[in-house]
Amino acid sequence: MSDIRRLAQSVFDQCEALAQFSQNEDNMDRRFLTKEHQQANAQTAIWMQEAGMTTWQDEAGNQCGRYACDNENAPTLLFGSHLDTVPNGGKYDGILGVLTPIALVKHLNESNITLPFHIEVVGFGDEEGTRFGTTLIGSRAISGNWGDHWHTLTDADDVSLPQAMSEFGLDYDKAILASRANDNLLAFIEIHIEQGPVLEQENLPVGIVSSIAGAKRFQITLQGKASHAGTVPMHLRQDAIVAFSHMSIAINEIAKKHGIVATVGFVENAPNAVNVIPSRTQFSLDIRAEQDATRDAALAEIEATLDELAKNHRVSLQWHQTHSAPAVACDDKLLALLSQAVEESGIKPLTLFSGAGHDAMEIANICPMAMLFVRCKEGISHHPDEAIQVGDVAESLAVLEKFIGKLI
Amino acid sequence: MSDIRRLAQSVFDQCEALAQFSQNEDNMDRRFLTKEHQQANAQTAIWMQEAGMTTWQDEAGNQCGRYACDNENAPTLLFGSHLDTVPNGGKYDGILGVLTPIALVKHLNESNITLPFHIEVVGFGDEEGTRFGTTLIGSRAISGNWGDHWHTLTDADDVSLPQAMSEFGLDYDKAILASRANDNLLAFIEIHIEQGPVLEQENLPVGIVSSIAGAKRFQITLQGKASHAGTVPMHLRQDAIVAFSHMSIAINEIAKKHGIVATVGFVENAPNAVNVIPSRTQFSLDIRAEQDATRDAALAEIEATLDELAKNHRVSLQWHQTHSAPAVACDDKLLALLSQAVEESGIKPLTLFSGAGHDAMEIANICPMAMLFVRCKEGISHHPDEAIQVGDVAESLAVLEKFIGKLI
Repeated sequence: MSDIRRLAQSVFDQCEALAQFSQNEDNMDRRFLTKEHQQANAQTAIWMQEAGMTTWQDEAGNQCGRYACDNENAPTLLFGSHLDTVPNGGKYDGILGVLTPIALVKHLNESNITLPFHIEVVGFGDEEGTRFGTTLIGSRAISGNWGDHWHTLTDADDVSLPQAMSEFGLDYDKAILASRANDNLLAFIEIHIEQGPVLEQENLPVGIVSSIAGAKRFQITLQGKASHAGTVPMHLRQDAIVAFSHMSIAINEIAKKHGIVATVGFVENAPNAVNVIPSRTQFSLDIRAEQDATRDAALAEIEATLDELAKNHRVSLQWHQTHSAPAVACDDKLLALLSQAVEESGIKPLTLFSGAGHDAMEIANICPMAMLFVRCKEGISHHPDEAIQVGDVAESLAVLEKFIGKLI
Repeated sequence: MSDIRRLAQSVFDQCEALAQFSQNEDNMDRRFLTKEHQQANAQTAIWMQEAGMTTWQDEAGNQCGRYACDNENAPTLLFGSHLDTVPNGGKYDGILGVLTPIALVKHLNESNITLPFHIEVVGFGDEEGTRFGTTLIGSRAISGNWGDHWHTLTDADDVSLPQAMSEFGLDYDKAILASRANDNLLAFIEIHIEQGPVLEQENLPVGIVSSIAGAKRFQITLQGKASHAGTVPMHLRQDAIVAFSHMSIAINEIAKKHGIVATVGFVENAPNAVNVIPSRTQFSLDIRAEQDATRDAALAEIEATLDELAKNHRVSLQWHQTHSAPAVACDDKLLALLSQAVEESGIKPLTLFSGAGHDAMEIANICPMAMLFVRCKEGISHHPDEAIQVGDVAESLAVLEKFIGKLI
């Protein structure tokens, strides 16, 4: 691949160009089924076409492109990642895994390289779950795992998923047609920034993912009693935010003790007035670990501790589970081929674990799956400081080209 | 006062009737310069007129009524409290101190009792400060203490105070004309529910206030770093909500240690997404004590502890003071007369301290001031469970009638 550096630079420039489609002027924020999602899909389709692919938007709003081989009955190698971002997010998380394989296809097309399989690239519409509180909507449509109750999902403005789909030009009732579960899929490969500090510490451009942590998520509600901030002695209060504070610290300490990660990302306090003792605090818990057993042991300890704290602080406590995914292992055979490709590219083949969830863990339900991590600056993601190097994109393109040569 | 029970019942019924003017169907919420404030003023004016008073709305939106004596040059005895409520508040906090003196005037008028002074009753438009983040706007207009920078105040919807006043039919530039600082005022008396549990514990219908605690309020901002909830190990995080949690607990414990009250009522977290480590948490601190020196000693310890915690948790810390009021003592002579009136009503004269701020502490700047507390159920206020007994209103009316007989 002689023009690898030029291709890598174009991937980098495309990431930059796609960042203009944001709901917020000040920062990156592109959520599922928004105008900006539509714009990102349209721009991605243009790049896919320029790479020699036929394109379509599927029934769930995922942007797809196909680079067909001569044999109609050949299996399909699927690449992809997501085009949505978190609020105040970065330009590469997800996006890189859509644009890098398009560049690979462009190279194959321009070099007239024929393969014994079709290649498709998918830009998933929703992975982050920040609009409807449910993650992986895009990849779950493709894996044939569309949620039975998703017609009841609503966003912060009370717009339902069916309504948002309709405004986007889609039909909620047809979303299940996006399923690829019965297709002849060779494998799914996701390229993604690491979102952690390991590759940078090891001074490596890419790494091979061994498995993806399964997250559990909860919404927890504490109900105390509102009262006047000036007249109720401290010991007589049923202050929801004080109870929350003890719980937040307990979650943090238990996570450290078990060597897992647990995060309280969302907090909503009521009535939220300066001179009223808080009566209700609602918060999220996101908990992940390398092994499901480790995660669930930590979770059990968190549950018991929060029960105790709720009693001590005289607040009621309600748990509502919003998400649960088991850890998903990558395919052994694909891992071995990726390792060889990395090694042949002159890079030490480091295998590491993904603490973040990815579309790949959903697509693993319908075909063998592997992931390639790309180094990112200081392990930062979900933040405007998210950054990558063009050279690392070039290395990942080189690895991918070697890798597809080894398939079949 | 033969019809005292009937009058007390009418005060109680009027509190009930006024509660219909709420911004929220589900709970009591009447903020400064809203349609509901306008409706409450209009209804209060009708009751003032029925009591024999002339009425007007002053330049700051306070509802006023006057029961004049024959001598035009006589001083004026001022009664009053506020007509606004906190969100999800009660029906009596403030309101009782407007409607009880109107009932007293009605009694004087119907009994043809003449006094050597005029009586005025004021329903202040803003005491709670929940709309513009600044308290006592109504009473500060009357004490001639209108804020220089108040044209910059905005509410949660970014409506400025001048804009809100204009929509209410008022002119921001004329608000200073509401001042009564140069008037011949005999005294200001505020009747208010206790908002604490002391009178109930002592089995007393009313109590005499010795002084009003001075509150200091701050808005505190923590800035950490947003990052992915799944990939950043616990020890590398700069999690603003974890730092906040430690601070919230420290505030609680320091308050207990110093025997004061300190409250974190408002919390806002950003970006507030389930899978993003919080980068910014903003919260309020409200701190009050019987003596300013005690309060400020506790505050100094809180400041030092929060500095230390911010360093430990690698977040930046910014304080912004939003309110400061010194403790205000009630007038000794008025206290003595109130005590006599209470005793002559057959009630043990209990003197107690107010942990809550009141309009009275502002009006104390322009004339002698005293307060009478009325027992409330379980000390609850700022909550729909706020409750009083008709019998206690009757006792307070009896005390007030005796009290005004002793003036001059």
